[in-house]
Amino acid sequence: MEIYFLGTGAGVPSKERNVSSIALMLLQEAKSVWLFDCGEATQHQILHTSIKPRKINKIFITHLHGDHIFGLPGLLSSRSFQGGDEELIIYGPNGIKEYVLTSLKVSGTHLTYPLSFVEISEGKIMEDDHFIVYCKLLEHGIPSYGFRIEEKAKPGELLVENLKAIGIKPGPIYQQIKQNETTFLDDGKIIERKEFIGPEKPGRTVVILGDTRSTEKNQEFVQDANLLIHEATFDKDKAALAHNYFHSTTVQAASLAMDGNVKQLILTHISSRYQHHDAQQLLEEARQIFINTEIAYDLFHVSIPSN
Amino acid sequence: MEIYFLGTGAGVPSKERNVSSIALMLLQEAKSVWLFDCGEATQHQILHTSIKPRKINKIFITHLHGDHIFGLPGLLSSRSFQGGDEELIIYGPNGIKEYVLTSLKVSGTHLTYPLSFVEISEGKIMEDDHFIVYCKLLEHGIPSYGFRIEEKAKPGELLVENLKAIGIKPGPIYQQIKQNETTFLDDGKIIERKEFIGPEKPGRTVVILGDTRSTEKNQEFVQDANLLIHEATFDKDKAALAHNYFHSTTVQAASLAMDGNVKQLILTHISSRYQHHDAQQLLEEARQIFINTEIAYDLFHVSIPSN
Ligand SMILES: [Zn+2]
Ligand SMILES: [Zn+2]
Repeated sequence: MEIYFLGTGAGVPSKERNVSSIALMLLQEAKSVWLFDCGEATQHQILHTSIKPRKINKIFITHLHGDHIFGLPGLLSSRSFQGGDEELIIYGPNGIKEYVLTSLKVSGTHLTYPLSFVEISEGKIMEDDHFIVYCKLLEHGIPSYGFRIEEKAKPGELLVENLKAIGIKPGPIYQQIKQNETTFLDDGKIIERKEFIGPEKPGRTVVILGDTRSTEKNQEFVQDANLLIHEATFDKDKAALAHNYFHSTTVQAASLAMDGNVKQLILTHISSRYQHHDAQQLLEEARQIFINTEIAYDLFHVSIPSN
Repeated sequence: MEIYFLGTGAGVPSKERNVSSIALMLLQEAKSVWLFDCGEATQHQILHTSIKPRKINKIFITHLHGDHIFGLPGLLSSRSFQGGDEELIIYGPNGIKEYVLTSLKVSGTHLTYPLSFVEISEGKIMEDDHFIVYCKLLEHGIPSYGFRIEEKAKPGELLVENLKAIGIKPGPIYQQIKQNETTFLDDGKIIERKEFIGPEKPGRTVVILGDTRSTEKNQEFVQDANLLIHEATFDKDKAALAHNYFHSTTVQAASLAMDGNVKQLILTHISSRYQHHDAQQLLEEARQIFINTEIAYDLFHVSIPSN
């Protein structure tokens, strides 16, 4: 579980920060990459990473503002051009399908892979063998969602020494014992898995919020996450501006991280009014409230350690 | 009259070449910039030039393939964000209006300036005090157009010495004489402008073709241009491939420049199969046919000298 920040700016691209996109790398867990938002030139940013567009099989859209979606038609086309053939699913608010299908139709683009859409609303929007994704409506003037990605717990390790102690030698049978609740051996022995397996490993939780005003209502949704990714469009002194424009400040993001007892906070969606040398100041403000904070920059890469 | 090549690649962006866009700088002639095509991340490329988005008041779209239009919604939004308030007109094939308006509607984008559309077809599509623009349908599978931009001739210089010789001293009267066919002086003299003005200065002609197969039918349209900008998606040995995919080779573009008696040829829309070091080879091929050829690269900048 790794994360690439592909674009960390707000509203318009600058030389320093592209508009929003985050890649959640699940290559070990699910052999795939999930994208969260896809601002213009996200595919250009991907050229500077190890990400292969054909490995992206889910794209989650927080909200429909242009700086979060205008890179979608180009990325979808290029994924096709590069020979992607696996299905791609786009999860997003009502309107995303119309935007994408109109763009593809007008440009005469015929994709080489199946494309489908899931219109999101609050609650569980996806579950597979490894992950569950929940959605929450935030406060942003237009519908803007947060995504809570919960990794399922993994079964514990087989207690090899205990098996050997009762005379079961290593071989294909070990895999069978691990995969089944009960295994019947040729010699009549009955093996209950729970007696030969260590404690299960709890999964990790990542919460990625779309653009949002600061509100207590977001706290439960981020609770106890391993990583919270939160916008910080403004510095701490611009709370009124942030409120009026449905955005958050550094300190508001940090307070949510603190109150929600998350392990780590990463700030993104930084206004282009802040230059490179301002980033340290923004970071310091947040760390006054929540020490385990980082501020993202384009192509910033972070691993989420196991629990 | 200057030209910036903002994107010179074909189909998909690469690290070396962005997708198509060309800026025709008419700051001296008309205090404006015209854009030809607007592939994704054109606004990003503009960040590396002196071009101000609010100075762009006309955008011409050759055809609707994604690599020529997917940068439009972002550029229009950013022009608004940066406080542009002058009207912008988009000239393009049927479909461009639906694409742009859907993108703006879905993303909730409200522009700060009037936006209008002109659906193009063959013939004269625009005329103002300084320029006339003609359109021609090319061969590209979908409707793809070329643009011929003809600068109008400028009136010659006032022959100051001749005016002085008949006793008319420099002053506001000179401007009056220059602007009117006939001027009546207070002392009863009648001045016919044509007797006191030098030869008019012929305007320049730039022809920018959209993606096209090589065809003799394009020759008349490019005839005698000061500058022809032509796609060269493939090298000279790939004429069959070029034909099948409705594109041109280096040598085909050069032959058109030769047959059309243009002054200069610039090749663009280079396939990403060609790396940086291949460009010289592509250029040499074209120069075998037409010596005054250049190959564009991203941010390549060229001035078009007066006739
Ligand atoms: Zn937003
Ligand atoms: Zn094309």
